[in-house]
Amino acid sequence: MKETGYQPIEWLDNKVKLLDQTRLPREEVYLELGDYREVAAAIKEMRIRGAPAIGVAGAYGIALGALKIEDTSRDNFMRELKDITQTLAATRPTARNLFMAIERMQQAAEARGDTAQMKKALVNEAARIHSEEIEATGKLARFGAGLIKDGTTVLTHCNTGPLATTGYGTAIGVIRQAKEQGKQIKVLADETRPLLQGARLTAWELKQAGIPFTLITDSMAGYFLNRGKIDCVIIGADRIAANGDTANKIGSYGLAVLAMENGVPFYVAAPVSTIDLSLACGDEIPIEERNPDEVTHLQGASTAPEGTVAANPAFDVTPHYYITAIITEKGIIKEPYIERMRGIV
Amino acid sequence: MKETGYQPIEWLDNKVKLLDQTRLPREEVYLELGDYREVAAAIKEMRIRGAPAIGVAGAYGIALGALKIEDTSRDNFMRELKDITQTLAATRPTARNLFMAIERMQQAAEARGDTAQMKKALVNEAARIHSEEIEATGKLARFGAGLIKDGTTVLTHCNTGPLATTGYGTAIGVIRQAKEQGKQIKVLADETRPLLQGARLTAWELKQAGIPFTLITDSMAGYFLNRGKIDCVIIGADRIAANGDTANKIGSYGLAVLAMENGVPFYVAAPVSTIDLSLACGDEIPIEERNPDEVTHLQGASTAPEGTVAANPAFDVTPHYYITAIITEKGIIKEPYIERMRGIV
Repeated sequence: MKETGYQPIEWLDNKVKLLDQTRLPREEVYLELGDYREVAAAIKEMRIRGAPAIGVAGAYGIALGALKIEDTSRDNFMRELKDITQTLAATRPTARNLFMAIERMQQAAEARGDTAQMKKALVNEAARIHSEEIEATGKLARFGAGLIKDGTTVLTHCNTGPLATTGYGTAIGVIRQAKEQGKQIKVLADETRPLLQGARLTAWELKQAGIPFTLITDSMAGYFLNRGKIDCVIIGADRIAANGDTANKIGSYGLAVLAMENGVPFYVAAPVSTIDLSLACGDEIPIEERNPDEVTHLQGASTAPEGTVAANPAFDVTPHYYITAIITEKGIIKEPYIERMRGIV
Repeated sequence: MKETGYQPIEWLDNKVKLLDQTRLPREEVYLELGDYREVAAAIKEMRIRGAPAIGVAGAYGIALGALKIEDTSRDNFMRELKDITQTLAATRPTARNLFMAIERMQQAAEARGDTAQMKKALVNEAARIHSEEIEATGKLARFGAGLIKDGTTVLTHCNTGPLATTGYGTAIGVIRQAKEQGKQIKVLADETRPLLQGARLTAWELKQAGIPFTLITDSMAGYFLNRGKIDCVIIGADRIAANGDTANKIGSYGLAVLAMENGVPFYVAAPVSTIDLSLACGDEIPIEERNPDEVTHLQGASTAPEGTVAANPAFDVTPHYYITAIITEKGIIKEPYIERMRGIV
């Protein structure tokens, strides 16, 4: 599996190094953050984004915060650690991976007897979460590529490549892997308003991977689906409920309905860390409402009259019955998700 | 019916005065065009847009060109007139109203014996097309408002107000009329990428009309439809085929599918001048493909990596079976459109 020439996140012992995704594709700027609050701010401002990458960044943020806790009792350490995890948990509510990472970090600390061991365990656990996410997308990409025939045109939404996953990519991972297997693959990439992760990040990653793509506005997907120009849709996920209902970037639900209406398979590609068995269905997934300025402005310039009220839900939920299959590192699962999901988590 | 404080198009005897819609909402700039080629360029560049408004602008453009034909024989006049109409016909292929206007202008000229009469007839015919469009949207708005209950939230797409129609508005006309009847109406307005007619123009017109609205990205419509936040969808039309299939701004088809999937009525509001009985179905409607730079750029700034290939179909076709009713100035029609359409054109 081919490496990319960029590193979305890296642990530098006492700093977290991030590729600032808000400045792509124009500039490749790396940030070195020495405070967990800076990591939290970077997640909130989407300098790093994508559910698996948010999980990894959250884990490193906790490790960073923990390392800087001064010598204290175990109880005080746990209290300070709780403040740190709460700050990171308050950044973005939808992606499951962040909360999965926080739970694992807490457990790693709790299992150790003294604060020095706890610090070491937290750094190790963050690195483990990172390497597991890398491994997971590599594996799921291989499973997913088996679904992709030679000559396929894939529609995708938002960004699900190495930037979003720190690894090989989920939806884009499947596409990359199919191409590496020698298949001719074309991509239609939704620009993904409001923050243009498709135009800015997916286009940048596909260009680097040498995969031919055409950029479209989100509103054009129906046109191409209806004209038979798309063979399958593959998206990532931010959180998957126990019944298979999937929260993903706003607009995903519409694509799923349009895919079904036109007889086109609709796949979700996500590591198991995205699955949340504690939620029975998608209605229970918290949907982040972001700043309406993201809708009334574009790259800093206002698009609408002054005083315009806008809504900005960042995600929507695709009910499981629109999803042809969910591609994970433990295999491809299909309906009845509610029965099969528990087998793989 | 309330007047607006702006005039999208005006005939000044030897000039056409246009409100430049590309500069709204930031600036209210009026252009005075003395050459038909400038009118053609203004249509192509979408300084004036919206199917009915394009028809009116095309008619005035022809009148302007005809007035400037120097003294010549009737045959030479008709030849020069043909060049003029061809220039205007070559601007934008999808809106039926432009071609309807061109046909009417040609017939008006042909019916006269000498070139002085022909010039006069052309100016009169353009003014007649303009006043008929104004009257049509006033009437259709009254028919349409009967479908809108008090307390309704309407989703609309693109811009269909006075700017787009030179009159009262089609979809926005229906909304304005319902409000003038004292009904509480809220609007969700799609921003309408790539050229943001929703964010720039619909928001500007609704603000002026005092109608409360919330701006959303095109990708959010499904989310709000699925959550029961939208009571009906109303859009305009660029061309309606004999079976009711409707070409409208890209993204309309997706809204229609999502409305049906969620049991929400989907209305098309359009004057009869938009209906094209010469086309059996929507497959025959020519779809304009515009410059891909409109997709890779936003308000002049690039959004994607250099060299990104983009597609830019400006319209899509909604099959008639997704359309709950078509609202025209001659009444509201429903399935079977193929039988009922001929009765009203």
